[in-house]
Amino acid sequence: MTRYKLTLEYDGTPFVGWQRQDNGPSVQAEVEAAVEAFCGTPVSVYGAGRTDAGVHAMGQVAHCDIERETDADTVRDALNHYLRKVPVTILSADPVDDAFHARFSAVRRHYHYRILNRRPPPAIERDKVWWIPKTVDAADMQAAAQVLVGHHDFSSFRAASCQAKSPVKTLDQLDVSRNGTEISVTAVARSFLHHQVRNMVGTLMWVGTGKWTVADVRAALAACDRTAAGPTAPPEGLYLVQVDYP
Amino acid sequence: MTRYKLTLEYDGTPFVGWQRQDNGPSVQAEVEAAVEAFCGTPVSVYGAGRTDAGVHAMGQVAHCDIERETDADTVRDALNHYLRKVPVTILSADPVDDAFHARFSAVRRHYHYRILNRRPPPAIERDKVWWIPKTVDAADMQAAAQVLVGHHDFSSFRAASCQAKSPVKTLDQLDVSRNGTEISVTAVARSFLHHQVRNMVGTLMWVGTGKWTVADVRAALAACDRTAAGPTAPPEGLYLVQVDYP
Repeated sequence: MTRYKLTLEYDGTPFVGWQRQDNGPSVQAEVEAAVEAFCGTPVSVYGAGRTDAGVHAMGQVAHCDIERETDADTVRDALNHYLRKVPVTILSADPVDDAFHARFSAVRRHYHYRILNRRPPPAIERDKVWWIPKTVDAADMQAAAQVLVGHHDFSSFRAASCQAKSPVKTLDQLDVSRNGTEISVTAVARSFLHHQVRNMVGTLMWVGTGKWTVADVRAALAACDRTAAGPTAPPEGLYLVQVDYP
Repeated sequence: MTRYKLTLEYDGTPFVGWQRQDNGPSVQAEVEAAVEAFCGTPVSVYGAGRTDAGVHAMGQVAHCDIERETDADTVRDALNHYLRKVPVTILSADPVDDAFHARFSAVRRHYHYRILNRRPPPAIERDKVWWIPKTVDAADMQAAAQVLVGHHDFSSFRAASCQAKSPVKTLDQLDVSRNGTEISVTAVARSFLHHQVRNMVGTLMWVGTGKWTVADVRAALAACDRTAAGPTAPPEGLYLVQVDYP
């Protein structure tokens, strides 16, 4: 038996999210089916983070135990063979210590949020970006984002469904930048509350469109009340890009 | 009556191509339906180039005559409203002289071909790139590409279905470059034969993977025979990015 760390890319559009659910296809169920097809026995696959329906990944990490004796490249290629009909790819499969746990061993998560800021809607990148047709000031969003960086009670940016024990988290980085018609938001932390990135982006967008000021974001954070902050940005702009381990 | 130059972006995946055909949905038919919905009467829309099934565009150009008196931004926004259910977007609508013809007035076409060169298949960019899992030498492809630049008989790179009067064309630019796992091919000419870009890319890939040398490409060009050159690269990597007018 060897424990493998799997690094995954997926298009979240057709899935109910990472986690196996009764109401539709999940990335976890697809990967578990591929591992079972390869090993011949049912295997559980554990992810570093539960991405929501429609959220993408360029570097989700998962682990599973594989009984079959083989090499890492064969594991990667075989799983990709069984995953060929769904938009899920194993970027790498690496043997790790039995103590490795994709979720509990993770020390930092990196998210990227993509906004297309132009009057015409996206055609090629449909379901891959949040489309904002009106003028957005990315510099104002960047200024407001700095209010959220640090050790805070993020209750104002926490989904009602969040199962975390505490709303207090340390946000290491939240950067907003523009490249032509695309605005990128990068968020880095040890861990995030449920919907935290999307709620922060939705709130920053109120600043970008002039509805709110930096002071309004500061007041929203201090309120520790979800109803005090802005709306949840849609899932299609969000990408889990990297998970760090010691 | 005002003639409009329309600049379009589209995801070619669900279409039989630009041109209206009996066997499935075309981009042209979708745009004509949108213009008719806006104007109330049937209108013909003429494209600069007939992209094949699965080929994308970030800057296709078309023209049509619109009876309704209105401004250009309204034309663009109204057409995008009627196109909202399909992956086709009007990037801009500009009033032009009645002598303007999207196809016959064009003086230069720019294509981009995207290759994903890595062992794991694409998940997020499925149908948007040509996936080549084996090692490719982009510098060798670039060297071979220079053989094709210039004024030549391109019969070896011409589809049997091509309706051009002459196989002689001037290829202004053909550049291959690598950025990480992505290889880009840029092709620029006044006009191209049917499948010319895809046939050149398929042939250059034989050089990139070591099957052919630069001399083999030179011999293939000189043969003026389609069977002397390499295979047709798949449509999903090809993008019509720009059409120039005087």
